[in-house]
Amino acid sequence: MRITALAGGIGGARFLRGLLAAEPAAQVTVIGNVGDDITLHGLRVCPDLDTVMYTLGGGIHEGQGWGRADETFSVAQELGAYGVGPDWFTLGDRDIATHLVRTQMLEAGYPLSAVTAALCTRWKPGVKLLPATDDRAETHVVVSDGEGRRAVHFQEYWVRLHAPAAESIAFVGAEQAKPAPGVLEAIAQADLILFPPSNPVVSIGAILAVPGIREALASSEGPVVGLSPIIGGAPVRGMADKVLAAVGVETSAAAVAEYYGADLLDGWLIHEGDAVQADRVRAAGIECRALPLLMTDTAATAAMATAALDLAARLGKK
Amino acid sequence: MRITALAGGIGGARFLRGLLAAEPAAQVTVIGNVGDDITLHGLRVCPDLDTVMYTLGGGIHEGQGWGRADETFSVAQELGAYGVGPDWFTLGDRDIATHLVRTQMLEAGYPLSAVTAALCTRWKPGVKLLPATDDRAETHVVVSDGEGRRAVHFQEYWVRLHAPAAESIAFVGAEQAKPAPGVLEAIAQADLILFPPSNPVVSIGAILAVPGIREALASSEGPVVGLSPIIGGAPVRGMADKVLAAVGVETSAAAVAEYYGADLLDGWLIHEGDAVQADRVRAAGIECRALPLLMTDTAATAAMATAALDLAARLGKK
Repeated sequence: MRITALAGGIGGARFLRGLLAAEPAAQVTVIGNVGDDITLHGLRVCPDLDTVMYTLGGGIHEGQGWGRADETFSVAQELGAYGVGPDWFTLGDRDIATHLVRTQMLEAGYPLSAVTAALCTRWKPGVKLLPATDDRAETHVVVSDGEGRRAVHFQEYWVRLHAPAAESIAFVGAEQAKPAPGVLEAIAQADLILFPPSNPVVSIGAILAVPGIREALASSEGPVVGLSPIIGGAPVRGMADKVLAAVGVETSAAAVAEYYGADLLDGWLIHEGDAVQADRVRAAGIECRALPLLMTDTAATAAMATAALDLAARLGKK
Repeated sequence: MRITALAGGIGGARFLRGLLAAEPAAQVTVIGNVGDDITLHGLRVCPDLDTVMYTLGGGIHEGQGWGRADETFSVAQELGAYGVGPDWFTLGDRDIATHLVRTQMLEAGYPLSAVTAALCTRWKPGVKLLPATDDRAETHVVVSDGEGRRAVHFQEYWVRLHAPAAESIAFVGAEQAKPAPGVLEAIAQADLILFPPSNPVVSIGAILAVPGIREALASSEGPVVGLSPIIGGAPVRGMADKVLAAVGVETSAAAVAEYYGADLLDGWLIHEGDAVQADRVRAAGIECRALPLLMTDTAATAAMATAALDLAARLGKK
């Protein structure tokens, strides 16, 4: 079974771990978000790709869901002593090694997809991990506060500003970006495509902003099944409510399904407590099931993945 | 009193600490060797400049004489796990922060002299630390072993190969290099100039290889006084014997004085145990004193510095 999944950071990575537990024999390709990527201290940092790689490769800090286990912070402490900013984004020492390898390879001319493949030869995540694009396409958020109205990089919005009200979202560079090698093929050749419970705007949305990917999904033979990241009218974690508001979408499981639309989504899983919204999803032309959607452990997450695969199997080829 | 000193790494840095203890009111300018500099993992590393900066700024690992105190090695461990070389040069995490700041500033277009000044705003070494040149001038060593006859970077010669017999030394790029801003002025305006007990070939010699510096020293008004790094026919530490042989110079206190020559050196301090060589030094036209030259602690080193200053005072203006 060939499965292609779009993924952001923590939510996507944890779902993928459940998927691999449920279907260890599946050939899984992951199209990872690069909209959060940022250059800090001259190092190219790809938080979502690394979260997937570390989570599936056994290197993740389980408690926080991002960054490396057994991390140390000597470099960050010294950068602080030099007064070199930004002080709101702390890179761990082990993590920095990943960024050093990546930055060197990028400077040597390798595309991000090749760099990611090289890093994965160490981590062996059990999936084929592809960046959505090898080009720069950065998610910026327009905010208005005491510092004025301005667009900030997503990391500044989330990590420094702690996700205040957002006016709008821009995927800077996305219009000129091309899908990375293998991305369109992975969508076209998949038996089914999954949208894990990742942020619909700044994770899945940033991937969809790369021209060609939305069209490939809309015309894929395999059904597309998603899992709601919104439970009980709120994101399980993160700031999806803030960025959904910025694109004029209500924070509810049904509204996110409508936002993706029936041209993208064939099936949508919502949390059992949101079952009352299932008819609204179906009215949008999207099949819907309600079941427990909290990724409390790998077994619970595997059950979610199995439910998504079951729904896809019922939907069959488009 | 304006003192200008040429310096390599550990020996130079320790001597300078003694000098500052002996003459805390002196205005000391240090012209540091950059021939050992190397780019590793995309990071520009300046071992001798950093050894001087860390030693005088209180950040040095006292036991080994180079690198940071309380160092950690998470990044290096991870780079090893990625299989990214070279594995024979280990960068500590705290040290890496220095290289990150330096590399970013260099990539932003700042010359090494400005970068060094910026780093020193943190370390406050109590001297004005200047690189010999802002240009690339790297010390390479021609060796011949099982891997064939070839030129290797000084760091590979010393750290990886452990200083085998050397055929010759090349200061690659030095001919086209210019002295960094302030270097020639510091020599011209000094009341006296010191050659600490640094390696005559790959430390002091690499500085002298930058066109203009040797000439400035030969025509300086202030006397030039050096301290022998050779005691009892052997270097106190390092591989001076090997690189002296490569330039056809015997490993003795007197031979090093002759190698510099009376056009550069006005006075030369040799170890008390080498007192028999004093007449040979004087025969070369260089004033000479024999006294204890082991830098066993700061007090002993300060006494050496005082002896050098006393000899310079006796010699007076040229």
